Amino acid sequence: MNKGALALLVHGGTENWSPERWKRRFDEVCGNRRVWRLPDADCNPAEIHYAAVWKPAQGELAAFPNLRVIFNLGAGVDALMADTSLPKVPLVRVAVGDLTARMTEYVVLHVLMHHRQEPYLRACQQEKRWAPTSQWPAGAISVGIMGLGTLGSDAAQALRHLGFRVSGWSRSEKKIAGVECFHGSTQIDAFLQATDILVCLLPLTPDTRHILNRGLFARLNRNSPLGAPVLINAGRGGLQNEADILACLDDGTLGAASLDVYAIEPLPADSRFWTHPKVVLTPHNAADTDPDEISKYVARQIERFEAGGALENVVDPGRGY
Amino acid sequence: MNKGALALLVHGGTENWSPERWKRRFDEVCGNRRVWRLPDADCNPAEIHYAAVWKPAQGELAAFPNLRVIFNLGAGVDALMADTSLPKVPLVRVAVGDLTARMTEYVVLHVLMHHRQEPYLRACQQEKRWAPTSQWPAGAISVGIMGLGTLGSDAAQALRHLGFRVSGWSRSEKKIAGVECFHGSTQIDAFLQATDILVCLLPLTPDTRHILNRGLFARLNRNSPLGAPVLINAGRGGLQNEADILACLDDGTLGAASLDVYAIEPLPADSRFWTHPKVVLTPHNAADTDPDEISKYVARQIERFEAGGALENVVDPGRGY
Repeated sequence: MNKGALALLVHGGTENWSPERWKRRFDEVCGNRRVWRLPDADCNPAEIHYAAVWKPAQGELAAFPNLRVIFNLGAGVDALMADTSLPKVPLVRVAVGDLTARMTEYVVLHVLMHHRQEPYLRACQQEKRWAPTSQWPAGAISVGIMGLGTLGSDAAQALRHLGFRVSGWSRSEKKIAGVECFHGSTQIDAFLQATDILVCLLPLTPDTRHILNRGLFARLNRNSPLGAPVLINAGRGGLQNEADILACLDDGTLGAASLDVYAIEPLPADSRFWTHPKVVLTPHNAADTDPDEISKYVARQIERFEAGGALENVVDPGRGY
Repeated sequence: MNKGALALLVHGGTENWSPERWKRRFDEVCGNRRVWRLPDADCNPAEIHYAAVWKPAQGELAAFPNLRVIFNLGAGVDALMADTSLPKVPLVRVAVGDLTARMTEYVVLHVLMHHRQEPYLRACQQEKRWAPTSQWPAGAISVGIMGLGTLGSDAAQALRHLGFRVSGWSRSEKKIAGVECFHGSTQIDAFLQATDILVCLLPLTPDTRHILNRGLFARLNRNSPLGAPVLINAGRGGLQNEADILACLDDGTLGAASLDVYAIEPLPADSRFWTHPKVVLTPHNAADTDPDEISKYVARQIERFEAGGALENVVDPGRGY
């Protein structure tokens, strides 16, 4: 089998994610396979067998007649799935330990920040007030995780290790040691009622769009030891109804929110999230991933595929992730 | 054996730690043993066999001629050891799982805050700036823990679980799985040189007073991926030279500091720690402990002691903890 070339279609990202850096990494791990950083006028689209992409333009992937596999350089494939001209070839999501570990760092950090009253303590520092208040132990707080794939399961275990009560909810049934698992639409109420801190790591699909809305927030534990329940969304901006989040923070339905993702990114300057005192905002950097790890992961998968082996983490077009 | 009475000498603390709450808890767990909340004019000092104390005044414990055991309601006994009139009876430190778990929460939270650039990200939010920067994985960061007793060992394991490289230093030799352990004065340089985030959980003794000073900070990893090394002190204020911390933050020897303890508490209003942009300040609440857990722990120890058993966690006057 001739070694088909790999095309890099990388748009945007931080300095860590520059197209140059991706090109260097892929050149290192792809042996004598040709790696094209597109656009490049010298590239013949017919020689491209593999595409590694980050935020490609709609229709950009339709240009390659001999494409065999698309590798998405992150975990979320909702933007790709919305491209109706996407070639009908396997689409692989990145699922490397590095990305999982970083998301767990983010989840543990933000759960602890709310649990340990960090926003209150920072306000006290600013006001030069020495005013410790009672602090619940982790065992008094229930963290509920929506989405129990690779990311959700790992975060659940880390929170358990710190002593939190952890439950989870997913579309289909899951079993995780030490975590009370709920699934499907019939069990979501029981899941929400027991949850003090809600962590959302769901994929964005037509079923989950705007799932984080007032109706859902109102069903969280109304007797939370934290005062009011807390929302942490590190999934996708499309999962959240942003007007509902703001209104629920204002009227006390939610006590606080940590948000890493937004309907529009970068977050527009006129969004109230920037200035809301109950919002802890991060610029979609919860699980910035390491080009070194990901490029190796893609190269390994291509080798296995060409040797007749199966691809891992192929997206199911029916469920959308 | 007659059931000797227990005296409660509790001064200060948050609402969670009110003397009334301690009295109720001890009454519940001490069966028909008499519990006195002092001062109380009706109490005959001769009937007191046990004292459970939190910040007693110098000399206050010398008033009980038949005292058999002193229980300190926290982990640090430095203030008691400084009382030259302290009766020569066993002094027991509290070591309950609840206190350990809370300290680990604090350590993990503050390590993650610095690792994940929280101070920078909060500043960006305040300035409405969407400006993600590169983020190291936990495996690129070395956390060094000074003090490898119950608290330090537990925090080390939790940080390991999140993927950090963890090393530790203690007075005497310790072994912890997955943690590179250094000890004594001959190995402290090797420990410091590899440390990006220094966590201090040492007891305060004549040997450790002001151990956190410029000389020590200057020996931390000068090539830290974080830019400059970070200090986290949740031990005792007496461990730190506060003028040195401020000067080292100002000149870049330290990149940031999380402080829970201070030379004078509450922290005086004119301390520069309140307003220093590189200081994350908490009001000595890292390991606020649960009166329910501690009162049960003390009652269990008294029962065992009266049955001829050994006391646990007795302070060694020679080493001071």
